[in-house]
Amino acid sequence: MATGKTLSKETAKLIDDMLQGNARALARLITIVEEDSEESYQVLRHIKPSGKAHRVGVTGPPGAGKSTLVGKLTSCARENELRVGIICADPSSPFSHGAVLGDRVRMQQHYMDEGVHIRSMSTRGSLGGLPSTVHGVIKLMDASGKDLILVETVGVGQMELDVMENVDTVIVALVPEAGDDVQAMKAGLMEIADIFVVNKADRPGADSLAVEIQSMLDLVGQDKGWRIPVLATQAANNVGVAELYEQIWHHRETSMDTDAFAERRARQRRDELTAVLEKMVIQEFTRAIASDARLSAYVSRMNEGEISPYEAAEMIYRTISQKES
Amino acid sequence: MATGKTLSKETAKLIDDMLQGNARALARLITIVEEDSEESYQVLRHIKPSGKAHRVGVTGPPGAGKSTLVGKLTSCARENELRVGIICADPSSPFSHGAVLGDRVRMQQHYMDEGVHIRSMSTRGSLGGLPSTVHGVIKLMDASGKDLILVETVGVGQMELDVMENVDTVIVALVPEAGDDVQAMKAGLMEIADIFVVNKADRPGADSLAVEIQSMLDLVGQDKGWRIPVLATQAANNVGVAELYEQIWHHRETSMDTDAFAERRARQRRDELTAVLEKMVIQEFTRAIASDARLSAYVSRMNEGEISPYEAAEMIYRTISQKES
Repeated sequence: MATGKTLSKETAKLIDDMLQGNARALARLITIVEEDSEESYQVLRHIKPSGKAHRVGVTGPPGAGKSTLVGKLTSCARENELRVGIICADPSSPFSHGAVLGDRVRMQQHYMDEGVHIRSMSTRGSLGGLPSTVHGVIKLMDASGKDLILVETVGVGQMELDVMENVDTVIVALVPEAGDDVQAMKAGLMEIADIFVVNKADRPGADSLAVEIQSMLDLVGQDKGWRIPVLATQAANNVGVAELYEQIWHHRETSMDTDAFAERRARQRRDELTAVLEKMVIQEFTRAIASDARLSAYVSRMNEGEISPYEAAEMIYRTISQKES
Repeated sequence: MATGKTLSKETAKLIDDMLQGNARALARLITIVEEDSEESYQVLRHIKPSGKAHRVGVTGPPGAGKSTLVGKLTSCARENELRVGIICADPSSPFSHGAVLGDRVRMQQHYMDEGVHIRSMSTRGSLGGLPSTVHGVIKLMDASGKDLILVETVGVGQMELDVMENVDTVIVALVPEAGDDVQAMKAGLMEIADIFVVNKADRPGADSLAVEIQSMLDLVGQDKGWRIPVLATQAANNVGVAELYEQIWHHRETSMDTDAFAERRARQRRDELTAVLEKMVIQEFTRAIASDARLSAYVSRMNEGEISPYEAAEMIYRTISQKES
């Protein structure tokens, strides 16, 4: 299993360069981690992220102006001379396609900026476990010395919510028009939001949406320590963005005082531990099955529909345990 | 581990009743499986689905009329005296809330119908691995003697696409208005669709959308054997639904001739095997860590941030393997 192997010279060089702040090396390493291979395992095993970077997730339905919000927050961070990493899981995001509509200039400005690393991750159609790889990319950006990492999701599907498990502060952006899909996910959104943003707040229905959210928040009751704010913004016109930026750091301080921050990070480490153990074991089992006729026979019998996956699993599991003990 | 234990008397009775066609027993068992517990493991282990039921997934952005399509397809199936199971992962679906708007009558008709079992699954906020539990619920409905199982998703997020891994025929429903989120997921949709439906086809832009989809399909090239149709429907007015229903069975026949059907089912069994093995091993590791001071020490050191999850995983893995051998 992986545990034995070590880094290839080439990858070790990439990590050194990345630690020197080489953006191309960082991009290469992210690609390796995205591929979720043996090599990516070695990379994530060897980098030592300081954990200093604050991780902010921005989620919400399509059309909520998430990319614009992320762009404006990036400008705020740069004015404060913070190095910013941006991860967008949204193929339609201005970040990924570089230039869309009025975002062109603003985005290009960030693209030129050496203090900003923008990475768009493909959602790989119906496959590709984004949440786990996002976690790896966050660690890489942290290790590369970013101060603020912004993660933008597409839509508000289940997986988009799971991605938010990997950040310290979750911003949920809504717009008055946000319809059924928000209704559908509202429970989930309420559960994960640290800050609510009603964007495009100049549109009709914005105030009533803010009131609705506030009353739902009062209903479910708030965490001790942090009172989830509901902010009105017009990101495109730079209205309310500075306050949002302030609230992010306010949330960081508060959650550090209440240990909520530490608990979140600890939960992420436990999730990572489980994921790594699963990977190790499945690798071992796969190898064992390939090299042991008895075991592969169970798989073929299952493929024939002769035995159920549960029966196959139990036979394989028992055989391997017996062999080991 | 699970493998030892057997069914509780009560659950065994539920399974018997379910096999007798008792709807309440089926509902109870689905709830057990949804909880994804030790008991649900035992249930899924003991039922023997015939695999005869054809499994159809209906996905697409909110507002595409998925629920209406599912309702109409159910009517077609009932006219042919097929028993239908409906799984909707959409909390906002008319199915889950029983009665919404004009759907009221039609839905209630299906609710009264003993030949139809409707189950709405909670997406459990930001958690709850729907894809795996959906697979279990499909197996239950199959075992209970349904002929056709319809799975409806909410939205087109990553997880909604993953759910479609569990069906034999995937219908992707779009509407002219379907905007950004479809653009974003288009690659994924193209990858999973067996049948495209342009619903609400009386609206402006329907024809051009159909043309756009067709040209994209021609671009990516079609699977040998099955030519993905692009159908125009107005589900609410029952236009084009009969043809859609025909195409479902046409796709089943074709994919059975080309072995695509068998391959899909085999892949599902392999995925299930992996999932079960992972569960078994993680259970063993969790027990081992709880009962072994050395192992739990690694976890605390990780929680302290002293060692990385990777280092902890490797130490735990090595310790357990050595103990076993």
